[in-house]
Amino acid sequence: MIIIMERGATKVQIQKVIDLLKDNGFDIRLNQGKVHTVIDAIGDKTSVTPGRVSALDGVKEVKVIREPFRLASRDRKSEDTVIEFSNGVKIGGNNKPVAMVGPCSVEDDYEGLLKVALAAKEMGCEFLRGGAFKPRTSPYDFDGYGEKALKFMKRASEETGLLTVSEVMDAADLDMMCDYIDVLQIGARNVQNFKLLKAVGKCNKPVILKRGLASTIREFLLAAEHIMYNGNPNVILCERGIRSFDNAFTRNVMDIASIPVIKKYSHLPIIVDPSHGTGQRYLIEPMAKAGLIVGADGIMIEVHHDPEKALSDGKQSLPIPMFKEVMARINQLTGRLQYEKNCLSANIK
Amino acid sequence: MIIIMERGATKVQIQKVIDLLKDNGFDIRLNQGKVHTVIDAIGDKTSVTPGRVSALDGVKEVKVIREPFRLASRDRKSEDTVIEFSNGVKIGGNNKPVAMVGPCSVEDDYEGLLKVALAAKEMGCEFLRGGAFKPRTSPYDFDGYGEKALKFMKRASEETGLLTVSEVMDAADLDMMCDYIDVLQIGARNVQNFKLLKAVGKCNKPVILKRGLASTIREFLLAAEHIMYNGNPNVILCERGIRSFDNAFTRNVMDIASIPVIKKYSHLPIIVDPSHGTGQRYLIEPMAKAGLIVGADGIMIEVHHDPEKALSDGKQSLPIPMFKEVMARINQLTGRLQYEKNCLSANIK
Amino acid sequence: MIIIMERGATKVQIQKVIDLLKDNGFDIRLNQGKVHTVIDAIGDKTSVTPGRVSALDGVKEVKVIREPFRLASRDRKSEDTVIEFSNGVKIGGNNKPVAMVGPCSVEDDYEGLLKVALAAKEMGCEFLRGGAFKPRTSPYDFDGYGEKALKFMKRASEETGLLTVSEVMDAADLDMMCDYIDVLQIGARNVQNFKLLKAVGKCNKPVILKRGLASTIREFLLAAEHIMYNGNPNVILCERGIRSFDNAFTRNVMDIASIPVIKKYSHLPIIVDPSHGTGQRYLIEPMAKAGLIVGADGIMIEVHHDPEKALSDGKQSLPIPMFKEVMARINQLTGRLQYEKNCLSANIK
Amino acid sequence: MIIIMERGATKVQIQKVIDLLKDNGFDIRLNQGKVHTVIDAIGDKTSVTPGRVSALDGVKEVKVIREPFRLASRDRKSEDTVIEFSNGVKIGGNNKPVAMVGPCSVEDDYEGLLKVALAAKEMGCEFLRGGAFKPRTSPYDFDGYGEKALKFMKRASEETGLLTVSEVMDAADLDMMCDYIDVLQIGARNVQNFKLLKAVGKCNKPVILKRGLASTIREFLLAAEHIMYNGNPNVILCERGIRSFDNAFTRNVMDIASIPVIKKYSHLPIIVDPSHGTGQRYLIEPMAKAGLIVGADGIMIEVHHDPEKALSDGKQSLPIPMFKEVMARINQLTGRLQYEKNCLSANIK
Repeated sequence: MIIIMERGATKVQIQKVIDLLKDNGFDIRLNQGKVHTVIDAIGDKTSVTPGRVSALDGVKEVKVIREPFRLASRDRKSEDTVIEFSNGVKIGGNNKPVAMVGPCSVEDDYEGLLKVALAAKEMGCEFLRGGAFKPRTSPYDFDGYGEKALKFMKRASEETGLLTVSEVMDAADLDMMCDYIDVLQIGARNVQNFKLLKAVGKCNKPVILKRGLASTIREFLLAAEHIMYNGNPNVILCERGIRSFDNAFTRNVMDIASIPVIKKYSHLPIIVDPSHGTGQRYLIEPMAKAGLIVGADGIMIEVHHDPEKALSDGKQSLPIPMFKEVMARINQLTGRLQYEKNCLSANIK
Repeated sequence: MIIIMERGATKVQIQKVIDLLKDNGFDIRLNQGKVHTVIDAIGDKTSVTPGRVSALDGVKEVKVIREPFRLASRDRKSEDTVIEFSNGVKIGGNNKPVAMVGPCSVEDDYEGLLKVALAAKEMGCEFLRGGAFKPRTSPYDFDGYGEKALKFMKRASEETGLLTVSEVMDAADLDMMCDYIDVLQIGARNVQNFKLLKAVGKCNKPVILKRGLASTIREFLLAAEHIMYNGNPNVILCERGIRSFDNAFTRNVMDIASIPVIKKYSHLPIIVDPSHGTGQRYLIEPMAKAGLIVGADGIMIEVHHDPEKALSDGKQSLPIPMFKEVMARINQLTGRLQYEKNCLSANIK
Repeated sequence: MIIIMERGATKVQIQKVIDLLKDNGFDIRLNQGKVHTVIDAIGDKTSVTPGRVSALDGVKEVKVIREPFRLASRDRKSEDTVIEFSNGVKIGGNNKPVAMVGPCSVEDDYEGLLKVALAAKEMGCEFLRGGAFKPRTSPYDFDGYGEKALKFMKRASEETGLLTVSEVMDAADLDMMCDYIDVLQIGARNVQNFKLLKAVGKCNKPVILKRGLASTIREFLLAAEHIMYNGNPNVILCERGIRSFDNAFTRNVMDIASIPVIKKYSHLPIIVDPSHGTGQRYLIEPMAKAGLIVGADGIMIEVHHDPEKALSDGKQSLPIPMFKEVMARINQLTGRLQYEKNCLSANIK
Repeated sequence: MIIIMERGATKVQIQKVIDLLKDNGFDIRLNQGKVHTVIDAIGDKTSVTPGRVSALDGVKEVKVIREPFRLASRDRKSEDTVIEFSNGVKIGGNNKPVAMVGPCSVEDDYEGLLKVALAAKEMGCEFLRGGAFKPRTSPYDFDGYGEKALKFMKRASEETGLLTVSEVMDAADLDMMCDYIDVLQIGARNVQNFKLLKAVGKCNKPVILKRGLASTIREFLLAAEHIMYNGNPNVILCERGIRSFDNAFTRNVMDIASIPVIKKYSHLPIIVDPSHGTGQRYLIEPMAKAGLIVGADGIMIEVHHDPEKALSDGKQSLPIPMFKEVMARINQLTGRLQYEKNCLSANIK
């Protein structure tokens, strides 16, 4: 920790900082410049937080040296985390990127869902995604069919062999969800719902954690840390766009560079969701490819058997025939990606 | 609803939009320009959402005319909502702005809390605020003393006559919290935790809803709508800063203009929190005044009996002697504010 | 300067950093933690920039202790800069806040301009503002009457005794403009047009420098530094809103807190422009007051004799009768402000 | 143009809007809903601007149907603009993406520049980039060697056959620069320096226009429109990152999706600059590839013969050996890109 004192900080103020740090086991170096005094506190203690130090009078700024995430950090674990499922599918590391496809919401139409699942299977995808509980900005919008939708998901999984992903919004639903679903998803709006993070941390299912609209990379990794700290190491990060000043043509701005940044600082797998990231059907293919070429471990794409009748997010869903074309081209790219990925890792890590 | 079609939209695509809208009871006007076709759909239906229409092929953009919040809107209720407490304190309308003060977290020191409460009482404040459950970005940070803290709050309330405010993070805690606390607070990170909004919507306690770091004004009012829609009309909005590109000198950017904007479009009371809004002790006074002079119905300020030892947010807390000076000056301003507030309302509404 | 090395930085890399810093006259302290090495470089040298150091292999981050602006800093000059005009009007320090009012663009209607000027004079304002050269996002928009407009401004100044302000967009116009105008304005879009900053730095007229839509406070003060460094100490800063993720109800978000922040770190005067800051007529009064109550040295407001026919920015202009009412209330506030301002300064500085 | 009136707009206010629009040749349709009145104004007139209409009393919002850029729009010109140089190099359309490489600033070391140019030539790049005039946030930073640097650029061009690119900051330098340089660059900070845009619009050299830190896509295309409107059709857009709330790991956020968006709405070529876009050497390769795979017409990369001694931007420059490795892998990708590009165009346009 480095503490920069205000110009004009008094000797008493400086001493108070030093005392607090020493009392907490830090090794102290004091550097007095002409204008500012800087205190270096050496040690990796958690007994005193930066906020505690910065509240002392005369402290201008506290600069933390180490990243605040620990379990999620490459400092602690240098090899990539790989999550393996019972059917042998793997996410992360040098494994082939996975594809998670399906409707935003599972609707009251099992045949429709099955059509999507069969197309996904045909194109070599590994996961069926579908919402049972939907976070909706307005209380007047459709918010999902709940357990009925989960039953459909399980049935489609049994018919196709696909693994399933669905969003959890409430810790109270967790046990029930775990009966139906292979991977739990935490949505962007719940990225700092710490009670929910804690609850999924106690589950034994892998968790996809979506980046919040205003999450910094550091906060995003700290949200993952909450899950890991509570006992669940199987976190899959998901970049799905952040909020910017321009939403005239896309819903969000996809922070594609966050993928190699996170690969450098964390061992966790990360996937990319161009449907939510852009909100535009025509941008799904290019942005999925952009994510993959910088090293993403998978893609999540909305596909609907009849987007014009979708109860949510139709604008950003691919209809099945278009999905097949797009996925074929993505598969072509993926087949060649191993080479790119190896080169990148060599440079990044 | 206004539907703008892509240049090159086909007759079939245009007809599909018209059919969907007519089927849902809208009155249709079709305007064909040289390049774009525009469809006006007149009617106030909720049977078809804008998202549903925008998913149709050939639709470029759907423009909604009415604001999506209804219960929170001045369209439905033109007079200000005033919330009255059993001791006669009122928030909103032409009532004197209230002051809510206290520590970020209630600590294991009842005497400390009482000192703050007594100072608040002495300065004419109406509410004691204090956190029992703290949302923390890092799992390694202190996250509150829970029920013990609430007991301290209740005891301090009984000794001073102050009303109490505390944040709820989990619907499971609601019943217990309602035994101790007069006003529930939803924090910025939970502004779109829809399960929690629904749960407090079913409570009979007033709710302070903090604006999210990346909430638009519209989303903020829609979050209030979730609470109202579930049965609780007593929502107090709170502006506490939004995320911007510059956090070198302040934690957030306070959107002071949002206060008169919200006054124009909604009847709900709104207060201002300069402690979280700026993260800097020296900015609390000016930014509290800025909020009040544009019409805020109250202020929320962090005060700690010993900020240098605070377990959270010490940097943005006022020590008691400084609080008294600041509050005295704020009271002087508040005494003169009625005049400003009346003038503003006349212009805004 | 503090240099934080990457985990895994080699001895050779560390030595290279030390050598570069020593060669440039810095005093070095080396602190080796378990994971990171930190190098403190003590001294206030400009011979090596932070960017130069951060380009060395193995450097993770360079943290500069001193603010990069010098002439604009309170470190160098603790008393407020006060700019005095030939007619005795003063801006800055403890002087009464000034008011600058007038149309966005001066139009081809001298009588209209004069009406505004007379109303401004009547209400006790000190400055007439009016654009002769207009930056326009689209090339199809009206971009000002140029020298003709400046002649009108000068004539209105002679008739009323008001000082005049107008925007300069091109260094080539400077000499001509200085014949007509008392204060030059640099618009938000030119805040980092360094050639223009340099040119006005060589003028002997005071300069109003508007904050850019995406300027950090530090960059804003560095833009002022460019003007001062080139010889002109009379810079008046102007907060006029920054770009955010929400522009549904206001054009920009006004960063009201930037005013006391800048007062703390710089001695330069700062004014507030709620017309551009919000883009909404009904927000001009509250946001002007918000700026003044936190310590602004003046306000800039758009007033038009017939806003519905204005060639630019009519939506955010006050018509004359409304202006008189608003200004009367602002004057009432200003009369009481001295007290607030003194209290604030005592706390901030 | 669609005009949405405030709830409560009076008949007189509505009539005023209609009169203004009719007087300017628009065809009018009036739609009265229960709450809001909507006026459709059909016609493609420039005689009245949206701002003029929105200034009328009772107008809530004016929605423009057509994009405001015209010359830059695919509506006017559906085929891609291709810029061809005297040596046969082409930018845009289905041509192979170009590479522009070189130092941020040309330094006082011709041999160093030549080394970079020779490496660029060896790797098949088409352009040498190098700054002679540098915009610098601080007046204390190095701002370029001016004409001397341009002479070096020309000499290196003659020795290698590479075309040259350099930034223009001042219209007064244009004639001189055109003697030395093949492509003029407008930097991000000058994207709305309309005097400079006008001046390069009158030149006969192609212009690279960098997106501003806070430019929306629409404003970016309008800046290009200024150049085209003044007579120069040869504009190459450049995505180089926008400002966001998170700059802890990257200087800016690269808006990769803006590339296919712009391809859809404009016929102009667009390139990508991952050096400025990220500020991090290790992100240059992945982000260059991300730009190319979504359809960029070229890349711009900073390469320095000795980045540790670079006078500017060393951190984001590749040293020559690393550049050769990176460029070899990018060339491999580019060789396979034609296929991707054709697929994308088919979907986007």
